[in-house]
Amino acid sequence: MQQLTIAGTTFNSRLFTGTGKFGDAATMEAAILASGSELVTVALKRIDPKDPERHDMLAWLRHPHIRLLPNTSGVRTAGEAVFAAQLAREAMGTNWIKLEIHPDPRYLLPDPIETLQAAAELVKLGFVVLPYIHADPVLCKRLEEAGVAAVMPLGAPIGSNRGLRTQDFLEIIIAQSKVPVIIDAGIGAPSHAAMAMEMGADAVLVNTAIAVAGNPVNMAAAFREAVSAGRHAFEAGLPGESRQAHASSPLLAFLDE
Amino acid sequence: MQQLTIAGTTFNSRLFTGTGKFGDAATMEAAILASGSELVTVALKRIDPKDPERHDMLAWLRHPHIRLLPNTSGVRTAGEAVFAAQLAREAMGTNWIKLEIHPDPRYLLPDPIETLQAAAELVKLGFVVLPYIHADPVLCKRLEEAGVAAVMPLGAPIGSNRGLRTQDFLEIIIAQSKVPVIIDAGIGAPSHAAMAMEMGADAVLVNTAIAVAGNPVNMAAAFREAVSAGRHAFEAGLPGESRQAHASSPLLAFLDE
Amino acid sequence: MQQLTIAGTTFNSRLFTGTGKFGDAATMEAAILASGSELVTVALKRIDPKDPERHDMLAWLRHPHIRLLPNTSGVRTAGEAVFAAQLAREAMGTNWIKLEIHPDPRYLLPDPIETLQAAAELVKLGFVVLPYIHADPVLCKRLEEAGVAAVMPLGAPIGSNRGLRTQDFLEIIIAQSKVPVIIDAGIGAPSHAAMAMEMGADAVLVNTAIAVAGNPVNMAAAFREAVSAGRHAFEAGLPGESRQAHASSPLLAFLDE
Amino acid sequence: MQQLTIAGTTFNSRLFTGTGKFGDAATMEAAILASGSELVTVALKRIDPKDPERHDMLAWLRHPHIRLLPNTSGVRTAGEAVFAAQLAREAMGTNWIKLEIHPDPRYLLPDPIETLQAAAELVKLGFVVLPYIHADPVLCKRLEEAGVAAVMPLGAPIGSNRGLRTQDFLEIIIAQSKVPVIIDAGIGAPSHAAMAMEMGADAVLVNTAIAVAGNPVNMAAAFREAVSAGRHAFEAGLPGESRQAHASSPLLAFLDE
Repeated sequence: MQQLTIAGTTFNSRLFTGTGKFGDAATMEAAILASGSELVTVALKRIDPKDPERHDMLAWLRHPHIRLLPNTSGVRTAGEAVFAAQLAREAMGTNWIKLEIHPDPRYLLPDPIETLQAAAELVKLGFVVLPYIHADPVLCKRLEEAGVAAVMPLGAPIGSNRGLRTQDFLEIIIAQSKVPVIIDAGIGAPSHAAMAMEMGADAVLVNTAIAVAGNPVNMAAAFREAVSAGRHAFEAGLPGESRQAHASSPLLAFLDE
Repeated sequence: MQQLTIAGTTFNSRLFTGTGKFGDAATMEAAILASGSELVTVALKRIDPKDPERHDMLAWLRHPHIRLLPNTSGVRTAGEAVFAAQLAREAMGTNWIKLEIHPDPRYLLPDPIETLQAAAELVKLGFVVLPYIHADPVLCKRLEEAGVAAVMPLGAPIGSNRGLRTQDFLEIIIAQSKVPVIIDAGIGAPSHAAMAMEMGADAVLVNTAIAVAGNPVNMAAAFREAVSAGRHAFEAGLPGESRQAHASSPLLAFLDE
Repeated sequence: MQQLTIAGTTFNSRLFTGTGKFGDAATMEAAILASGSELVTVALKRIDPKDPERHDMLAWLRHPHIRLLPNTSGVRTAGEAVFAAQLAREAMGTNWIKLEIHPDPRYLLPDPIETLQAAAELVKLGFVVLPYIHADPVLCKRLEEAGVAAVMPLGAPIGSNRGLRTQDFLEIIIAQSKVPVIIDAGIGAPSHAAMAMEMGADAVLVNTAIAVAGNPVNMAAAFREAVSAGRHAFEAGLPGESRQAHASSPLLAFLDE
Repeated sequence: MQQLTIAGTTFNSRLFTGTGKFGDAATMEAAILASGSELVTVALKRIDPKDPERHDMLAWLRHPHIRLLPNTSGVRTAGEAVFAAQLAREAMGTNWIKLEIHPDPRYLLPDPIETLQAAAELVKLGFVVLPYIHADPVLCKRLEEAGVAAVMPLGAPIGSNRGLRTQDFLEIIIAQSKVPVIIDAGIGAPSHAAMAMEMGADAVLVNTAIAVAGNPVNMAAAFREAVSAGRHAFEAGLPGESRQAHASSPLLAFLDE
């Protein structure tokens, strides 16, 4: 499997994970290790250095192969996002930031205007910016022009587990993008992750579907396999769909002879 | 991963494969080995003992972990199918038979009437019968009552690579069946195979999508991973879909404080 | 709109309706009249001549433009179906019969084996047979060869309102059939009915979606319009789908000049 | 059917149409009349007053029940859009404007940033603004706050005829919007238009599917019926989908008695 490079950093795994919704920290750590993930996103709130209990949470994620990706979840404007990113850089010692701006608490859908504005400012401030956005191909191009390191279009609303409901637009984004495309949000089953990779996505980010599974550790391992399967299939060359049947087996002529 | 048992035989792999459409026999063998498949279907025509070249084809499939499953592809009636199954038993030394009766050469869709009749006769003749059929839940129950060892409903027309187009009915079949359910035909990508397993199918049979891939050996490995991923996810307990967003990350309140 | 002919009888409406699940008989009559339907199916049980109240139900359906189509709903074998058809012929004075054989009370899916057997017998007994079946193209051809007047493949399980979940197979059935194809079961919205007609189906049968609507009479009128829309679109020639955008408006060049 | 009001103007028809791609002007006029449409969009370029032939095109659209809606198709920035809108106001004597800004000539997808900026400016300049946008619920809310008269989210790329590929997001937009929601782009068949109305959209805009049909006039009439059907169904109260069958007919018990 080809390695993935984002902003000069190389990843062996194309499965990125999140840290929300797990029942406890030990399960979270075990699941993340089982996933093979090398990029793990953490909400800034959870690493508030003033709160020892929350700060301690980082201890579970300290593994040499894991890069932490703080996210700005909870902010509602570009200004709040830039401020949150700066806090995160200080608290976590990384200039990587997952930019999430969703003003609406019900569907948690990202704001395109604030996101582009914040992305441009953060790039100027030296951040490696990975914005979470709607599957909007024009917005992706504008973010790319603004200097983001990757784009993170959604498959479906966060936590909905509905899969790649934006497929037609993800295909366009993947075809056009010069930066890595990471499908984020909505991936609710390993088959969804495999499909994203088969379409040529560079990576997927999965959180809810692992965290709330009956067995999160085994589900993480399942996603690891599925992402690998989908990427291998993409590299091996999938055949196209057909409206007509094509026999797998040559027809048996001798019975008529 | 739980083992699968069909007619008293245990399988570690839930990926069954076919032998049609490969560019050459060496690639076929390598792909089947890479798939980890332990049940491989072969058209009777291709093992005609009178034709040394065709018979030789079996040599590529002789591996201790592989059970051969002759199929009756090409027959059009129950009578032809019973005759073909008997020829296959003699030629290949196995009483397992994949029963395929498709009178129409264009779509290769199976005939429900002839299939049930042939299945009942073959069961009486001591065969272990695995019938390929439409995703028809009532027919599946009748075949089960006739004593088949498993049912093999189709996902889409053979070779179409369109995936699980019969999903609503496969779900009913899986919920009702007392014999293993093997999804056959139409599976065109690892994500389709993973989805079948996530739904609770017992196994999948894949041929075209591997055989005509750019790199059949790597594609076989990708399917192996995907089937494992889907089964692990099924066993680990997938969460349901939701119409509404659910935050993966707790909302960041402190910026407002 | 072209007229539809079944067994020599001509219909101006391609929307067939049922009589089950309505809140009361007056609403049923008003909805059926609003639908414009000229073929209305009635369960034999509801016209039991020994029960005056049930028999009276037919009074609501006596309109010169409406042909009644008794159905065998509730039977589980070919023998029961033939018996029920004969009762219906006697009770209702029509040799038309909608053949429904569904042994399973949960999903009410039709039995292909019993249906073919009963259809063949009923044709020999002089009935005009319209069998309700799974969307199985091979079964449809066999029923056609047995002399049925039309085939009635399902779109989805009865009463599920899920639409044309068997679309891939309906397309094959429509392409192959020499008798009219009436999509039955699963049609839950006018858009589903329109889609069936756009695909080239000859007619649709709708019951649940009208009967349990907030306003059954207005819903019946909506289905009438949708069926007409879909048929007109089919006759007018629908353009194909495209993966790429095509401007509706010529691009505005002069702003650059 | 309830009337639709946009910016104080009332419409009896919920089918809006376009003028591009027709084979000739007479067919265009006949199709638009057959559609019953009362709001017809015209690319500014086609009504260039300096070019008598193009200007003449408006003559085909002058009917008392039709309001013209100039669009800014072809512009690539907010500045160009505002300029084009002002030209259109002068040339056509209307302050209504369909705001379309699509910088990419391949997929013609709208630019969210430029669209919001132009919308805000045009509202201040006294225009009644109807922006064509991606099916982005957050963007729709921001446009609503900026004072647009309606939002026009896309179903699929323009001219693709692929239908409501953005369904999950259209549902959210419809649920949240305080201004009318008009589904624009991608509607390729009357069934798509009916589905949009069943979902609760306020109107649809159709151009390509009518203009390039085999018979555009009859196709326009088909869309008219489908939009009416879908709206009537919405108002009549559609039943929900179900995973399980529900008999339309009471089961026939007496055969067992």
